[in-house]
Amino acid sequence: MPEPIDFLFSTPEMAAAFSAAAHMQGMLAFEAALARSEARAGIIPTEAAATIAAHCRIEAFDIETLYREAAVAGTPAIPLVRMLTAQITGEAQKYVHWGATSQDAIDTAMMLQIRHGLDLLDAGLMDICSASAQLAERHRHTLMVGRTLLQPALPITFGLKAARWLSLALRQLRSLRALRADTLAVQLGGAAGTLASLGKQGLQVVALLAEELELPNPDLPWHTERDRVARIATTLGIIAGAMAKIAEDLVLMAQGEVGEVAEGKAPGKGGSSAMPHKHNPVDATAALAAARLALGEVPVLLTLMVQEHERAVGGWQAEWVALPDLFRYAAGAVARVGAALAGLQVDAARMQENFASTGGLIMSESLTMALAPHVGRPEAQRIVNATCEHAIRSGIPLQQAALAEPRVRTVLTAAAIEQALDPAAYIGSTEALIDRSLNAYQEELQGSRGNS
Amino acid sequence: MPEPIDFLFSTPEMAAAFSAAAHMQGMLAFEAALARSEARAGIIPTEAAATIAAHCRIEAFDIETLYREAAVAGTPAIPLVRMLTAQITGEAQKYVHWGATSQDAIDTAMMLQIRHGLDLLDAGLMDICSASAQLAERHRHTLMVGRTLLQPALPITFGLKAARWLSLALRQLRSLRALRADTLAVQLGGAAGTLASLGKQGLQVVALLAEELELPNPDLPWHTERDRVARIATTLGIIAGAMAKIAEDLVLMAQGEVGEVAEGKAPGKGGSSAMPHKHNPVDATAALAAARLALGEVPVLLTLMVQEHERAVGGWQAEWVALPDLFRYAAGAVARVGAALAGLQVDAARMQENFASTGGLIMSESLTMALAPHVGRPEAQRIVNATCEHAIRSGIPLQQAALAEPRVRTVLTAAAIEQALDPAAYIGSTEALIDRSLNAYQEELQGSRGNS
Amino acid sequence: MPEPIDFLFSTPEMAAAFSAAAHMQGMLAFEAALARSEARAGIIPTEAAATIAAHCRIEAFDIETLYREAAVAGTPAIPLVRMLTAQITGEAQKYVHWGATSQDAIDTAMMLQIRHGLDLLDAGLMDICSASAQLAERHRHTLMVGRTLLQPALPITFGLKAARWLSLALRQLRSLRALRADTLAVQLGGAAGTLASLGKQGLQVVALLAEELELPNPDLPWHTERDRVARIATTLGIIAGAMAKIAEDLVLMAQGEVGEVAEGKAPGKGGSSAMPHKHNPVDATAALAAARLALGEVPVLLTLMVQEHERAVGGWQAEWVALPDLFRYAAGAVARVGAALAGLQVDAARMQENFASTGGLIMSESLTMALAPHVGRPEAQRIVNATCEHAIRSGIPLQQAALAEPRVRTVLTAAAIEQALDPAAYIGSTEALIDRSLNAYQEELQGSRGNS
Amino acid sequence: MPEPIDFLFSTPEMAAAFSAAAHMQGMLAFEAALARSEARAGIIPTEAAATIAAHCRIEAFDIETLYREAAVAGTPAIPLVRMLTAQITGEAQKYVHWGATSQDAIDTAMMLQIRHGLDLLDAGLMDICSASAQLAERHRHTLMVGRTLLQPALPITFGLKAARWLSLALRQLRSLRALRADTLAVQLGGAAGTLASLGKQGLQVVALLAEELELPNPDLPWHTERDRVARIATTLGIIAGAMAKIAEDLVLMAQGEVGEVAEGKAPGKGGSSAMPHKHNPVDATAALAAARLALGEVPVLLTLMVQEHERAVGGWQAEWVALPDLFRYAAGAVARVGAALAGLQVDAARMQENFASTGGLIMSESLTMALAPHVGRPEAQRIVNATCEHAIRSGIPLQQAALAEPRVRTVLTAAAIEQALDPAAYIGSTEALIDRSLNAYQEELQGSRGNS
Repeated sequence: MPEPIDFLFSTPEMAAAFSAAAHMQGMLAFEAALARSEARAGIIPTEAAATIAAHCRIEAFDIETLYREAAVAGTPAIPLVRMLTAQITGEAQKYVHWGATSQDAIDTAMMLQIRHGLDLLDAGLMDICSASAQLAERHRHTLMVGRTLLQPALPITFGLKAARWLSLALRQLRSLRALRADTLAVQLGGAAGTLASLGKQGLQVVALLAEELELPNPDLPWHTERDRVARIATTLGIIAGAMAKIAEDLVLMAQGEVGEVAEGKAPGKGGSSAMPHKHNPVDATAALAAARLALGEVPVLLTLMVQEHERAVGGWQAEWVALPDLFRYAAGAVARVGAALAGLQVDAARMQENFASTGGLIMSESLTMALAPHVGRPEAQRIVNATCEHAIRSGIPLQQAALAEPRVRTVLTAAAIEQALDPAAYIGSTEALIDRSLNAYQEELQGSRGNS
Repeated sequence: MPEPIDFLFSTPEMAAAFSAAAHMQGMLAFEAALARSEARAGIIPTEAAATIAAHCRIEAFDIETLYREAAVAGTPAIPLVRMLTAQITGEAQKYVHWGATSQDAIDTAMMLQIRHGLDLLDAGLMDICSASAQLAERHRHTLMVGRTLLQPALPITFGLKAARWLSLALRQLRSLRALRADTLAVQLGGAAGTLASLGKQGLQVVALLAEELELPNPDLPWHTERDRVARIATTLGIIAGAMAKIAEDLVLMAQGEVGEVAEGKAPGKGGSSAMPHKHNPVDATAALAAARLALGEVPVLLTLMVQEHERAVGGWQAEWVALPDLFRYAAGAVARVGAALAGLQVDAARMQENFASTGGLIMSESLTMALAPHVGRPEAQRIVNATCEHAIRSGIPLQQAALAEPRVRTVLTAAAIEQALDPAAYIGSTEALIDRSLNAYQEELQGSRGNS
Repeated sequence: MPEPIDFLFSTPEMAAAFSAAAHMQGMLAFEAALARSEARAGIIPTEAAATIAAHCRIEAFDIETLYREAAVAGTPAIPLVRMLTAQITGEAQKYVHWGATSQDAIDTAMMLQIRHGLDLLDAGLMDICSASAQLAERHRHTLMVGRTLLQPALPITFGLKAARWLSLALRQLRSLRALRADTLAVQLGGAAGTLASLGKQGLQVVALLAEELELPNPDLPWHTERDRVARIATTLGIIAGAMAKIAEDLVLMAQGEVGEVAEGKAPGKGGSSAMPHKHNPVDATAALAAARLALGEVPVLLTLMVQEHERAVGGWQAEWVALPDLFRYAAGAVARVGAALAGLQVDAARMQENFASTGGLIMSESLTMALAPHVGRPEAQRIVNATCEHAIRSGIPLQQAALAEPRVRTVLTAAAIEQALDPAAYIGSTEALIDRSLNAYQEELQGSRGNS
Repeated sequence: MPEPIDFLFSTPEMAAAFSAAAHMQGMLAFEAALARSEARAGIIPTEAAATIAAHCRIEAFDIETLYREAAVAGTPAIPLVRMLTAQITGEAQKYVHWGATSQDAIDTAMMLQIRHGLDLLDAGLMDICSASAQLAERHRHTLMVGRTLLQPALPITFGLKAARWLSLALRQLRSLRALRADTLAVQLGGAAGTLASLGKQGLQVVALLAEELELPNPDLPWHTERDRVARIATTLGIIAGAMAKIAEDLVLMAQGEVGEVAEGKAPGKGGSSAMPHKHNPVDATAALAAARLALGEVPVLLTLMVQEHERAVGGWQAEWVALPDLFRYAAGAVARVGAALAGLQVDAARMQENFASTGGLIMSESLTMALAPHVGRPEAQRIVNATCEHAIRSGIPLQQAALAEPRVRTVLTAAAIEQALDPAAYIGSTEALIDRSLNAYQEELQGSRGNS
């Protein structure tokens, strides 16, 4: 069972991928692969490697005991190696953990967990792209208020907003995929990163180990050069930030006074212990919370880059908490945004209503641009300023105020004014932008299929 | 069992105090106390209150189910109230959670957990004070190199360093104790903080609830004014920072080339999977890691202060993770520093050796101050600069160089030079400062005893 | 002139208080006071002290030269002492900076700046309290929608919201004032914190220096125990968080679709380069930006607590930027919230309209509480849930749905239903809470007057 | 003149690149290029574009006035456009800022500044690579203590440490260069990102603008999708972290008790106002301070990603401070590390001495690996543990203890023991790793030359 709080702010899959058990499993996978690699390099007997690998089964280990010892030893790898060695008899026992240091086992295990975590995030982002793409396509022409500084600004379509979410998510997906080649890496350097304990065969064993575990082979051991970890952390942080942006848009649109979207209903979802009428945006709220928790881990991991000499005194160890937490909460943010988008109830009529309630003021720039070719942008702006103020003061629609304004009427006919105030005619490149976003998504989809 | 990682970076007690179970227990304590308070105010029948309170037993609830539902409902209070209600039959069922909102239960439960957490931290800081006081007393006269920018600067005594740790820890203890009066508070405001569901008796019930739970009664409900939480968070953050300062001093003194302190040995402690000779500062290392993790939660909780209107959409919910984690890791940092100090092995001979190895250069300021009354501080500094350079260049002790320097000899006799280079004679107010620190500690101790 | 960006996110006064010039001025004040203190202690001649003090005039120093040298020397105090010494001839020259270290000058100067900064923030918070108090009083009865998770929840009054802002600001004011006694302190310890260069008179000089500069006298020098700085930083951080909370409420209420408040108009304020109709919440926006910038400095200053031995290698130096920036942006946030509140245009009619537009659904809890004494809270909630759903589905007011619901009608008369749906009758302790907040403010005001 | 503090923690060049003046210059470059692009697209007259461009000269603008107005208007673009318009007479005046919004000017200006900033950082990182490469080559065989958890661990060479710095810096250089293609982008979307004010020609104008300014053309406007900014911020944050890692290694090696490196001397550099003998690592200290300041901006910029709808209310505006500060301090960290490495004084004899002072204990793993093929790794470790303890307890070299240990002697001859304790024979793949690092640097150098 994951931690209870993971139900709220993570996913069961990611919680499992970054559990203590998964880390232990990763260390065992390292030890097995190390033995196999060394056997292939002729350093240890093949039978010993087989025996060691056969004992690298998590069922044979007790996590609580291991971590109790780890608290004293300083790392979970020390008791793991002790326990593994204790389970093996005969010749093979001699070759357990041959030539490696604790950090080799821990860092490589972490990389295996990260690889799994990236897969899970990838799938989650794909879901978001898919849901966004559907919204972008379906609401391509659904007019709504574009808002700047939370004030009505110009007409947009809801499809464009969804297309921007799509592009945002798509860019994150690409960043995530780029991480595999750029930052994943096996770790094997021995105690001080020289591979001394493997004599002249160190680099050969590293290469074989990378092959065994299907992880990239780094140029150099990276025990205290943690830019790889930092790059993973910041990429996830940016994903969390992107999720929060989408979730924030959702909760703002779901406000009672706005009412443009609502999350899909489910039994027990979004109610209140006190207020029966409530329909809270539960998924977007959890996404915002999870995103903030994920974002909070990034500066921790960045400051942990200051690692002393050949192994850090505190900076490395703190990663064991911060990185798993980052993956857990990033996954929660992604999953919750995915759920919110997948079930999103869009109220196009309300969007239209909110649009209409501005009394046409939202078309002020359009009116300005209609006047500008005649009188220049600055003068047009002055005229429309005055016209807007008149409309607001008198509580009349902008169209009526414009018709009453001589400086407008001298250059624009009533029909021209009407056209200038038609929102559907003033959405510029909206459709082209939606197409760009959808096309990029299609390309990524085909690329993904091609690769798989 | 706590999370495995808690063995490394927290304490079992604090992990338990901030477990999901403890939170549930806190919410049940709230529901029981609420019912009792409302009975005392005549709002609900006394028997109903007794029945409700009797069912507020954690054994009757399943945490996993609760959190699975919480993920859908948005808060753990909603399923808790549902489950509690389902267990109660008859008249009493009507009065469960009467007049309260989810946030009331959750925030009050959190405050109960915080109160417990403060107790645990208090005890941990007391241990540090005690260990520091012993070191300060015992090493009052143990000369060592004072270091600025990691360079030898002036003589100090190890007792003064320990006294500074003591004062630092003592100030944190006082901050912690001040939190009880200033920031602990019961939360009861109803859905929007007006106590509307309790009619005219709202404030009376809040006062009774505070009494029942022995928590302070706040002026106003504080659903979205989270300065209390932020103040708790920052106080713990400063404690974590203080722990890291002490731990950093320890790991620097424990360096191979410095060798002035070592952590106490224990079976399995501080070894290496690869290097048999290693004696790693395991506690200080874990303290540094835990402190950084704790510090990482503070900015999260500070930015969560931006809570919307009468209940936040994300900002509040993220506290459920960030605050427990902060307590967990702060406790780990405190416990690990306490362990490191309690068992600290101090090598006074090595301190003396390091002192001697500067060849007297560390006494340069003393020599300057001896010259200064005669030639002024600026000229004295110029002379001593030249003398130091001569000593360094020629690889001779500063005393020899000083004796050879005419500008020194014209104003100082050989005896005066010798005296100026005697470290024991150049520690200024060291003893008085140690006494100040020890006295403040004694006063706090007596105050604590007086209060208990 | 302050930095251009300070016009947007700080105040001219705070920018000046934390300028390089002000820091230099502070160091000169330290040097003058140090000389006077040492003269009073009989350590240096009175005439020398007078001469030194007379030269501690900022006009005689060139800031750019000083900082160019500081870049090489590592601190601005070294070139300052050099320049000051160079300006003084004769006997007095001998006694410049007597017995002090660079950090003594810099830390004490910083404390003088902080004291000034606290005064400025105090005044700014008083303005916010005053404006909030007026809003609380004036809008004591102005009904508005209480919102949780950005959804309509229950009726509150705008006066209560303002009273919560008042209490929030008032608590910050008190925290700020507590800082003066708890954390301000002169710094004088000499190179390694032993006061060795002042022989037996070290503590006497520190006490005199504290007297001269009207700063508290700390128990011990605090060169690398930076909890004082951290406490100041976190207090300002919490202030920034509080400002952001208020500003966030403002921008949400100012939304086009909500329209409950607007910032006061001024020529050139809040317009758009493209959209003539816009009236942006410029002050609240700048407050949010400034608050985030201020909050960003807090974790920096907290992690800087890890200072090595007797003077830090990087951690101390970074404070020279982070602390001034924190004060600058905190001041900006306070000033902008003050400006927004002082000129706030409140649209009570729109508040009423938003209230009405919920069709009475916002009174669902009230209806539940009216039914609860008859059928119990759980059953009441089920009934009202169904009634609300009926109202929403049919697009009818809750009152109509309630009248049509047999389970309601069996226990409540039409009049009782009407009463249960009257928002003015369902605001609980709102008035009492407003009074509490206003009374606390009056007490603080009288306390302030009493002290001045 | 840059801000005084920039002398300490930034560089004059970067301070200039991110000054208010540079930002203004960037906005003017945007306005000029916009006009030219619109002329090329046939939207405005060519003469008007020429006139506008001719007036986009920073000399004609007063920064202080602009920012004073910006404080009221909410953005510096509004007064800039006003001032620019005021300077232009006749027909051209009509077309100033045609079709653009404030954010277009500000974001594009920022991107121009970023491009410049990336150039400066690139050059700084190249200097670090060059200095590291020289150290790696020169000290390829310079044996030194490898340290884990600040304890002596295994022999390494200083060349390997430098090679790791080189690889670290090189990876950052590549990340930086990747930013140009991935994240730089022109911004033009009009008020709500639809390009409505440019009719059907919006995307054409964006493409022309990108061409004019030699910035990439983004798929979509990115007004509130700030992943580009976040990616730049995190890349710089990782650079700052990398700088801090190198600087931390330097200050640790420069410690009095270690003495393996010292920064190059310069007049006035690294002294103390109180201690004439000091030679402080001024550059590394400033690098650590600058790096921490830079790192502090990253979480600010990440949390700013939560931008509302089509323009943010606070989140965008705070970037105007946080991003310039990030560039300033990152540049300071890079420049200071570069200076420290370029002038680094390496004391190979002291490295050897520190090595020797471990009494051979640092070779314990080597002895273990020599025994392991005979008795297995676990038993070898037990034997060497006992041997080390004997050596430590008796204060004898490990070699002597090993010769006295029967379990060692049964399998190893005296010569084999001697060989096992020869550090030069136990550095594994050190040379190969240095070569890898140097080769990668050479490839990058050739690639750079090929591109230029």
